[in-house]
Amino acid sequence: MNPYLLRCLELAHRAPPSVGVNPRVGALLVESERILAEGWHERPGGPHAEIAAIEAVPPSLRERIPAATLYVSLEPCCHAGKRTPPCTGRILAEGIGRVVVGCCDPNPQVAGRGIETLRQAGVAVELAPDPRPFEAVIRPFARSIRRRRPYVILKWAETADGKIGRSSGERLLISGSEALRYVHQLRSRSQAIMVGKNTVRRDNPLLNVRYAPGQPPVRILFDIDLDLDPTLAVFRPDAPVIVINHRRNESQGHLHYFVPHNKTAYIRLDILLGELYERCGIGTLLVEGGRYLLQQFLNQDVFDEVHVLRGPQTAPEADVTAPRLPDELYLDYIAPLGADLLFIYYPSNPNR
Amino acid sequence: MNPYLLRCLELAHRAPPSVGVNPRVGALLVESERILAEGWHERPGGPHAEIAAIEAVPPSLRERIPAATLYVSLEPCCHAGKRTPPCTGRILAEGIGRVVVGCCDPNPQVAGRGIETLRQAGVAVELAPDPRPFEAVIRPFARSIRRRRPYVILKWAETADGKIGRSSGERLLISGSEALRYVHQLRSRSQAIMVGKNTVRRDNPLLNVRYAPGQPPVRILFDIDLDLDPTLAVFRPDAPVIVINHRRNESQGHLHYFVPHNKTAYIRLDILLGELYERCGIGTLLVEGGRYLLQQFLNQDVFDEVHVLRGPQTAPEADVTAPRLPDELYLDYIAPLGADLLFIYYPSNPNR
Repeated sequence: MNPYLLRCLELAHRAPPSVGVNPRVGALLVESERILAEGWHERPGGPHAEIAAIEAVPPSLRERIPAATLYVSLEPCCHAGKRTPPCTGRILAEGIGRVVVGCCDPNPQVAGRGIETLRQAGVAVELAPDPRPFEAVIRPFARSIRRRRPYVILKWAETADGKIGRSSGERLLISGSEALRYVHQLRSRSQAIMVGKNTVRRDNPLLNVRYAPGQPPVRILFDIDLDLDPTLAVFRPDAPVIVINHRRNESQGHLHYFVPHNKTAYIRLDILLGELYERCGIGTLLVEGGRYLLQQFLNQDVFDEVHVLRGPQTAPEADVTAPRLPDELYLDYIAPLGADLLFIYYPSNPNR
Repeated sequence: MNPYLLRCLELAHRAPPSVGVNPRVGALLVESERILAEGWHERPGGPHAEIAAIEAVPPSLRERIPAATLYVSLEPCCHAGKRTPPCTGRILAEGIGRVVVGCCDPNPQVAGRGIETLRQAGVAVELAPDPRPFEAVIRPFARSIRRRRPYVILKWAETADGKIGRSSGERLLISGSEALRYVHQLRSRSQAIMVGKNTVRRDNPLLNVRYAPGQPPVRILFDIDLDLDPTLAVFRPDAPVIVINHRRNESQGHLHYFVPHNKTAYIRLDILLGELYERCGIGTLLVEGGRYLLQQFLNQDVFDEVHVLRGPQTAPEADVTAPRLPDELYLDYIAPLGADLLFIYYPSNPNR
């Protein structure tokens, strides 16, 4: 692959999960084999990668911009966003004559029109010979913008005989240290994490990132009647907390009390997630339990990936069984993590 | 997926890398929803998974075997191996009436004939609805048996400006702890690891598995004139060492002096690897450096995967550049590992 396009991919990966409903994009300006500047999309409302790169060009090199090639992992936008003007306008205003694009923007508001706008203005636009690595980087974005809901990963750990816990609340050790580290990596790549009320009450989980580098995700809880003990660990101020309830709709420091506008959201996850996407800018969501909540996501067909960590031991006496997987899942990936096995499933038809 | 087929996959993953040129296979016998016994392929020359499962049935349950269903991740073999009789014969001798198979055996000596043999003898044979997860488990085996050489993974770490070291030998720190752990996981899944002579001499590497669970791989070295210092760390007795040379062809404890039969093997890696496959039973090989050796594997088109760990820092003063990737590689996977990025490339046409 062209090394500048590869570099765009690297820069795109610098976008943190908090980039939210926005795509992860990287860009650089190259003139006569010299990189003038690089940029990436760093936060919602912040400059897009192309603009960040243009603005990072040192004053002494600015006169070279018209002669430069702009490499960008995703098609430049041609529509004004809520907080940002269209990138195509800025590219034309800078007089950039050549643009190399990783892949087309799946956003229906763009979808080729960004490239078309540039070409009609006389800019030479080339597409990467193989768009797949660029599409892979924005997969969560591509899925979420089409469905107007976050990209959802369901995750649980189960024993070799398919148990995930004990109804008594007594702890069931399932995963080894490698598997635990994997869970924390998953968390560090998720913008938000969701758990059911019983899990919060019974396990008092921290839901932070301990065994991997990264920021703690937004915690999303169900506390319909606002009767959870406020001293529970999930209410800690180290990350924003969204409390889904039916009484208060206001923010208090890091606590965001969230009442869905559409009351059906209490029983329909697609509607609830749609509101979290539109109103809170939640673009990626990891659901960690408990069993009831996970099964609801599966039954209602509101998910994009399922990660199951299967431990080597059985627990015949444990009585909470793992969620039942729908038949039409596709088992895409299996890998050992220490003595555990990781299974990653996708919906058979991800475009459903 | 059928839970018994899923269990076969889990059992298949228990096969250690030392299973070598053999496939990783899992099997279980189920009668009236009860698992009578499980088995997997544990070592070259050891019983195949089906036989291991049959032989693990407790004496009190042996009379149930004819009524049981045999689940097995790979088609049972119908040919006598070097050390094992055909599995189809044993299945028929046990009177097993129903067999469920994950995928067909890519071994040209089997390739559907195992299933055919069973069916002609009146056994009901079913195939998994989706063979892909089963094919994925045996991918190294499938590739290596077709080419009669080990499945080869090339791996290196490079800086953000594409440097892998200093010709002075002075250490260049590139990867963070997550990336390092990844390298050790790769090693723990490889039967053998190969490095060039200069790397051994200059870096004195341990080439063992420290930051992941697992056994140290076989170490394969080039020491054509047998003039490497025998106190170098690679000669430690914690794992077998294969020393490619042109003088001695004999084993001395853990040291195996290896003179290729075909002298072309000194310059043609496919011939050298073919001999390591046939004579030493090496089924999977990780090549870690140095630059010259990696470039030879790339240039001679003798590899199945390339894993590149790209660090976040540049090293303008370092003078050893990363191997040059051929144009027709396909970048399949990118993932952050701490501040590093992992790139996994495959040949565009893996069946070439």
